[in-house]
Amino acid sequence: MKSFQDYYADDLAWCFGCGRLNLEGHHLQSFWEGETTVARFTPKAFHTAVPGFVSGGVLASIIDCHATGSASAAAHRAAGRELGDGPLPRFVTASLRVDYRHPTPLGPELVLRGRPEIASLRKVSVAVDVRVGERATVQGEAVCVALPDAMRPT
Amino acid sequence: MKSFQDYYADDLAWCFGCGRLNLEGHHLQSFWEGETTVARFTPKAFHTAVPGFVSGGVLASIIDCHATGSASAAAHRAAGRELGDGPLPRFVTASLRVDYRHPTPLGPELVLRGRPEIASLRKVSVAVDVRVGERATVQGEAVCVALPDAMRPT
Repeated sequence: MKSFQDYYADDLAWCFGCGRLNLEGHHLQSFWEGETTVARFTPKAFHTAVPGFVSGGVLASIIDCHATGSASAAAHRAAGRELGDGPLPRFVTASLRVDYRHPTPLGPELVLRGRPEIASLRKVSVAVDVRVGERATVQGEAVCVALPDAMRPT
Repeated sequence: MKSFQDYYADDLAWCFGCGRLNLEGHHLQSFWEGETTVARFTPKAFHTAVPGFVSGGVLASIIDCHATGSASAAAHRAAGRELGDGPLPRFVTASLRVDYRHPTPLGPELVLRGRPEIASLRKVSVAVDVRVGERATVQGEAVCVALPDAMRPT
């Protein structure tokens, strides 16, 4: 199954967090699961905060990318389109809030679940939680906006 | 000159964002400049958002590490100690907010400036801005707390 990020246009698929063309990046991949979105990510051994726990910066990064991917897919769906019906519109984050409620152990797969809320076809808020097994360790909220013209590759 | 992160104890110096012992990480380094703290960071070519701009996740990550480093140094100073007078106490982030006010161009050095505000020796808030030349492109705010016992290496 193709992820949201697989539907980004080639010139917009270089993100360090989720770009399929970025050879050094995290390659986060996001999918629909009903009305919510899901991404599964197993951090590498070097994605450490202190030994045994996942870096808060890496957690912020994957929340950010899952949110922009979710915003993109939600706006596409709200415009009446299916995945594969043209490239997904690219969104970027205007603001991000992350609450680290419990330490996130390094090792197990993390499951990110997003709940997009459409303000308009160009502005989508996404609540994201990160779970290890049943436990939500981190909660995030991102306000995502359609890629501004100033950031569009020429 | 040694950075704040050079004064972390060896078993707490593995962070992906700023750990001097993490071979794969960003190696952010923070310093006092009067009452504020400063870190300079030049992103790598692969720290992309869309081509030409810095990844929001990388920006969140370096803000996070500059904030915890600043909190650590500020708490140490507030306890009446100088840098080098024992290891710095390690702080972690309880919550992080990042506002991406303008796209951050990829290429130039970024200058992060932190303003720590001590709530107690175990809780410090830090406002951080990221500048490219004179322009502040990103503003962050982190609430940092002393490393909880549950995260301390045994």
